[in-house]
Amino acid sequence: MRAQLRAPAVSAARRAAPFSTAVAKEFDIPKATIAKPPDYGQLNPPPRLMLGPGPSNAWPRVYTAMATPMVGHMDAHFIQLMEEAKELLRYTWQTKNMFTVPVSGTGSAAWEAAHANLTEYGDVTLCAVNGYFGERAVDMSSRYTNNVARIDRPWGEVFTLDELKEAFAKYKPQLFWIAHAETSTGARQPLEGVAELCRQYDCLLLADTVTSIGGVPLFIDDWGIDAAYAGGQKALGIPPGMAPLTFGERALDKMSRRKEPVKNWYLDMNMIRKYMVSDGSGAPRSYHHTAPISMLYAFREGLKVLSEEGLENSWRRHRTVGEYFWEGLAEIGLKPHVAHAHRLPTLTTVKIPEGVDGKKVVKHCLDNYNIEIAGGLGSLAGVVWRIGFMGYNSKKENVQLLLAAFKTALKEQGKLKM
Amino acid sequence: MRAQLRAPAVSAARRAAPFSTAVAKEFDIPKATIAKPPDYGQLNPPPRLMLGPGPSNAWPRVYTAMATPMVGHMDAHFIQLMEEAKELLRYTWQTKNMFTVPVSGTGSAAWEAAHANLTEYGDVTLCAVNGYFGERAVDMSSRYTNNVARIDRPWGEVFTLDELKEAFAKYKPQLFWIAHAETSTGARQPLEGVAELCRQYDCLLLADTVTSIGGVPLFIDDWGIDAAYAGGQKALGIPPGMAPLTFGERALDKMSRRKEPVKNWYLDMNMIRKYMVSDGSGAPRSYHHTAPISMLYAFREGLKVLSEEGLENSWRRHRTVGEYFWEGLAEIGLKPHVAHAHRLPTLTTVKIPEGVDGKKVVKHCLDNYNIEIAGGLGSLAGVVWRIGFMGYNSKKENVQLLLAAFKTALKEQGKLKM
Repeated sequence: MRAQLRAPAVSAARRAAPFSTAVAKEFDIPKATIAKPPDYGQLNPPPRLMLGPGPSNAWPRVYTAMATPMVGHMDAHFIQLMEEAKELLRYTWQTKNMFTVPVSGTGSAAWEAAHANLTEYGDVTLCAVNGYFGERAVDMSSRYTNNVARIDRPWGEVFTLDELKEAFAKYKPQLFWIAHAETSTGARQPLEGVAELCRQYDCLLLADTVTSIGGVPLFIDDWGIDAAYAGGQKALGIPPGMAPLTFGERALDKMSRRKEPVKNWYLDMNMIRKYMVSDGSGAPRSYHHTAPISMLYAFREGLKVLSEEGLENSWRRHRTVGEYFWEGLAEIGLKPHVAHAHRLPTLTTVKIPEGVDGKKVVKHCLDNYNIEIAGGLGSLAGVVWRIGFMGYNSKKENVQLLLAAFKTALKEQGKLKM
Repeated sequence: MRAQLRAPAVSAARRAAPFSTAVAKEFDIPKATIAKPPDYGQLNPPPRLMLGPGPSNAWPRVYTAMATPMVGHMDAHFIQLMEEAKELLRYTWQTKNMFTVPVSGTGSAAWEAAHANLTEYGDVTLCAVNGYFGERAVDMSSRYTNNVARIDRPWGEVFTLDELKEAFAKYKPQLFWIAHAETSTGARQPLEGVAELCRQYDCLLLADTVTSIGGVPLFIDDWGIDAAYAGGQKALGIPPGMAPLTFGERALDKMSRRKEPVKNWYLDMNMIRKYMVSDGSGAPRSYHHTAPISMLYAFREGLKVLSEEGLENSWRRHRTVGEYFWEGLAEIGLKPHVAHAHRLPTLTTVKIPEGVDGKKVVKHCLDNYNIEIAGGLGSLAGVVWRIGFMGYNSKKENVQLLLAAFKTALKEQGKLKM
């Protein structure tokens, strides 16, 4: 039916219809005035195995989904896919929060959305800084309020509940930021008792779950987390470009009590809510911005892959592979930077031994194995490597390959003690 | 070589290594406490022909590029692809601006980046409002300054230089926003003399080129535009998710004179500059956020497709197809909303005739032809349809198919006068 419609007869005269005079004038551009285009080759990236802090390689199914032809961002079919993605995300985070959405940007955009929407100028934000991303939290929240307090811990350690209690008593924050998973150190923060502490001070609990979502046990509702964000490019195996965000009732209540509009248009969740979250009335969604359609396809597919494996199985897989890696490290004389009890199975910081050129090892892995790993950030630069086995990449054969690469890299420097 | 490395021998004992006691405890979760995942079907979107205001269907090559396996966002290969994308974007916009970058979000993010970086609280922003997106400019800039002035014109018309002169004399703005192409009305604003006016008042000229880039003659440098943003999902044929932004010398100078940090972390171009723009020293790029790698592949490929066609050829194609569509409209008794002299060839607003149910026509096109078109926004809701032939979709057979759809839609309502 459609094929017949697509090629109707067109008269030769009409095909040859000339521009009007005005149009002809518009196109009367001397050739010399138009700058020439550059001439680049065909897209042909090297086949990297990405075992750094993310992005990880995406699931093959996710690439296929992403390349599926688009429908419009207001199309009923797209709205349905968005609803499915949201529900899959609720499962992944173990939350019933209605406001659980993919943000149209990378993880940092979802993160900023939390600060922008949940603070008003003058509010006290307390940031628990035990890594590079804690510093970012301080910077980001300082764009939205003049009262940013911080508590610090050496990078790679975690906070005790008593330390947090002391800080709350001192600063009486309205928003508390803490990394469940510090992507710069690979430390996992226990959150027992933190939600109760926040409630005691009428404070919102905002958790960074970028490197824990899908890879580490995490229960947004059971743990009383009021707001959280994540990235898709780590344990979820989705290319970066769309990022998970969830707000619970207490967060939504804070939003509804705002005196001033959100000081950020693109991330204004009061507006995005009208597009992404049904009010239950059956009223049509309101256009805000054009959602990244292909990214939503990828996002939904990645979450679907996880749901088919089962959340608990994914957690176990990441843990098994993490332990397997740590055992392998010990065998070649390398040590993780974070204590075992607080170590993320998704991402490990490994101490660069005395006398080893860390950058040379990174280069060796890339040049000889097409493996990407990363160095440390901030005060851990030159001190650790960051190595992740996340999502699609979390499998024992990748551990074996990386260990093989480390062996030849250390041998090259004459540093392998075995 | 690699295949040999990937499957080394692993002892059976090691494979079966149990969790430590602590880990076993962590995974001692009663099955009932983990909420079940939903069970959705395979991704299977309907084959839409998107002839609304965007997104348009992407070039097939762009989908293929997007699904190419990723490399890391700090990988030298990725930095090279980013440089190529930037250079292709310079060609597309006909600018030599060093600061010409893809923003990690959709068009609205690139737009907000301009306001966030180029205004400080207290600055006067003047917005030329002749459509829905003019209203958005007022809203967006009000997030960053308390002095937002506006001049208005009926939606579908354009401003004269004298009107702008009068407004400048009255408000003395530091930033002037104007839509080169108003995506809600399909009007094309002539910009002759506007840059000179801006310079006279030491004001930056910020142009919305979302629906003109690649489809309509546009010369950022020759026309003296200080800052511009666009979308990829219209005449460039790229899925939404990464958006063009350019700042000229005067805009960069304003940024460097800021007294306060940019009130937006994700879009802080002082930081993004260190990642995306080389300072020429050969120093390594600084990490800011994880760029949407797959979107950058798509972005580069879409611009490459355009560069291979040639900018002028693309402009001519859009114009030819636009004129062809307007002639066809006349044949079935329909009229564009915008006067011919100021009509965008990329996007046409078509008047809904007296007595015709506009929504029914939209539904008819979707249900019977899988064609997406859109209604009007704001004060043009119920007054016009918005129809675009952009990028990959700008071809005569699509015009013919849409006209066929309109004929049967109008016949269905007993409104076709032929």
